[in-house]
Parts: sequence; C-alpha cells; structure tokens
Amino acid sequence: MKALIPYKKKNAKSRLSPALTQEEREDFVELMLRDVVGSLHEAGIDEVDILTTLDNGVPNDLQANVVLDENDLNEAINEYLSHEQKSIFIIMADLPLVRAIHIKEIIARPEDVVIVPGKGGGTNIIFIKDPSNFHVKYYGSSFLNHCNIAKERKCSVYIYDSFLLSTDIDEPHDLVEIMLHGHGNSREYVMERFDMETGKARARITVSDDA
Amino acid sequence: MKALIPYKKKNAKSRLSPALTQEEREDFVELMLRDVVGSLHEAGIDEVDILTTLDNGVPNDLQANVVLDENDLNEAINEYLSHEQKSIFIIMADLPLVRAIHIKEIIARPEDVVIVPGKGGGTNIIFIKDPSNFHVKYYGSSFLNHCNIAKERKCSVYIYDSFLLSTDIDEPHDLVEIMLHGHGNSREYVMERFDMETGKARARITVSDDA
Repeated sequence: MKALIPYKKKNAKSRLSPALTQEEREDFVELMLRDVVGSLHEAGIDEVDILTTLDNGVPNDLQANVVLDENDLNEAINEYLSHEQKSIFIIMADLPLVRAIHIKEIIARPEDVVIVPGKGGGTNIIFIKDPSNFHVKYYGSSFLNHCNIAKERKCSVYIYDSFLLSTDIDEPHDLVEIMLHGHGNSREYVMERFDMETGKARARITVSDDA
Repeated sequence: MKALIPYKKKNAKSRLSPALTQEEREDFVELMLRDVVGSLHEAGIDEVDILTTLDNGVPNDLQANVVLDENDLNEAINEYLSHEQKSIFIIMADLPLVRAIHIKEIIARPEDVVIVPGKGGGTNIIFIKDPSNFHVKYYGSSFLNHCNIAKERKCSVYIYDSFLLSTDIDEPHDLVEIMLHGHGNSREYVMERFDMETGKARARITVSDDA
C-alpha cells in the first residue's frame, strides 16, 4: 500500500486570502501537509509519495518521496496509477483534520474502492485497491465521477461518511473547524492567529488583535 | 428512549431565501421534518416528540406527539429534559440526510452523551442517556458548550463524526448535498426545482429553466 498526496504550495489556497497573506498561506499549506503525512505514518502507511511540480518545493525533512509531474492533476495521477501495482490511498493535502483512526478504518474496508466525499461533490480521499483498473477525474462533481467510474469498472464501492474528512480547508470559515476539531501543526498555527467569534449563527473567525 | 425534534415552520430558513420563496421554504422544512421522523421510526424509535410553538402547525398525519412551548429553544428543551426519565435523542429538523443506520449507531454507543457536531461549532444531534443530569445550551458554539457541560457533570462523551449529519440545510449551497447524498421527500423536492452546475469549484445549484 502507498499513499499519494497531490501538493501545491506556490500561491496556494487563494480563497483563504481574506484571512492569510500569500506567504502565510504557503507556510500554512506546508503545515497541513505535515499533519496529513503524520497521520498516514501513524496509521502505518510508510510509503508516501507527494505529487507536485518543480516549483513547489516539498520540505526535505518529510519522510516522503517527491514525484514530479508538470501535467494537470488528473493526467498526473492517472499516469501514476497506470504504473502502480500496490493499493493506492489518494488524499488531498488540505485535510489536516484527518486522524490515523480514519485511515485505518478506510484501508480495512473490503470494497474495491472507498470514496470519502467532500463538501459540494468533491472527493477528498479515494482508496483504490487495484490502480490498474481505475482512473480519476477530479474537478466538477468528482464524487459522482468516481462513483460512475467504479460502476463502469464493476468495482464495489464504500462511501465513508466523515465530517472531519469532508472538511477541506478552502475558505476562512473552514479555519474554525481546525480550532474546534484539529490537532498538530495546523491547529497550533490557527490558534496563534485567530479568535473564535460566536453568535447565533455558525462560529466565525476573527483576526487576533495581537496577530 | 424518546426522540425530541425542535421545529419551526413559520418563515423558517430565511438564509435559503435566495433559492426558495417563504411559502416554498415552509413546505420544504415540513418535508425535511418528514424525512427525519421517517428515519427515526426506521431506526426503531417510535416515541417522537416535536417541540414547537402554537403558530407552527405540525402536520396531523405524522406519527409524532406535539409538545407546545412558547419559550426560547434552550428554556423549552431544558424544561422538557427536567421532566424526563428516559434517554433523549435530540435531533434538529433540518437534517434530512440522516439515515436509520446513523441513529442506530449513535444510540448503541456506551457513553453517557453522544454529540454530533455540525459545521461551525453547532450541535446537530445530542443523545443524552440521563436527561436529569444534563442541560443544553444551543446558539454560539454549542458543540463546545455541550462538551463542557458533559465534563462538569462527569458524563462520558463520544463525538460522532459524520459528514451527512454535519450538514444542516441552512444555505443554498447546502441543497447540493441533498441532491448528491439525500433521499426521501426532501431530495424529491430539490431535484424537481434545481440543477447542479459544476465547475472547478464546489458544485452549486441553479434554478431549473422549467421551475
């Protein structure tokens, strides 16, 4: 089994710009990546490949391999899958709420494919037992795409239902979820910078006076 | 065991007004209520109390009791809990993605209290084994409130992690989740009225031309 993490640092997460500068966002995505890799290792997945491009430097001290591919996300992943025999656990780098227990539960499922839906029809994690019999199609409603591809390929599918794994960190209000349910480097980073402001509606973040 | 569903129909869900008129929203909250009650019955919870006020007519054909209380949500629920000996499963009426399997898993937990977090620090479901030893505090970050109350009362707590149960239907983009992951009356209603528009970002809804 191997894990694959698509990763982009350069000008990442532009939708977080109301809350964080470009430099802060680039620091922050690296911290989220560290938390994801940490949970994978804790779950016993030692072989971790980070799929990225030349100008998105992955830190040297991460126990992970760097796979460079300048193509777009789908092409790059499908190229990778076509050369793989082992089961592949594809997880996005912006899921710092993931814990080892989630990963262990997902990889223990007997189905051919496990899909973890994100908000709005995304695919936050996909676990593929036989990568030679699957291809990915991110963007658009990738959750439906992946359900359909599994059906065409006659793969059994399990939909793993998790709030924490549905929470990819894209927008300022997602940072609240890190404060409430997070751990590790990303939580420390957010707690240092923001306060939680609560009213009748959903909790929001506010920038600390001393930030 | 009993279930308690706080319910408000009159001018409900104002944040859905970009997508639905007041009359439509009032119809829609009733359909969501029907789906929630249906899943409770399917999970074997026969005794369902709907907590509401005089002007929020609960349909007569629902197999549920109506409990009228004109006080605010917290006061009304705490008054209810103070007179109850049975375990209470408090579920919000805007959770049409709930299925019987979720409910069965929650009520099978051995802990004193099970909390199902919503987005932004909400409490979407709380299951309380001994209602005489608990009180609720909705609004604000009720998830943290309820964790703290459990700690004060020395209750063991389980946090039930579910994307589907974290998805209370408050804003137009939440309707997409009903299209993707829903069932029952509420899904039928949404599918008749909206199309899904997908691009690189999260899926959005658009009003059907023939709506």
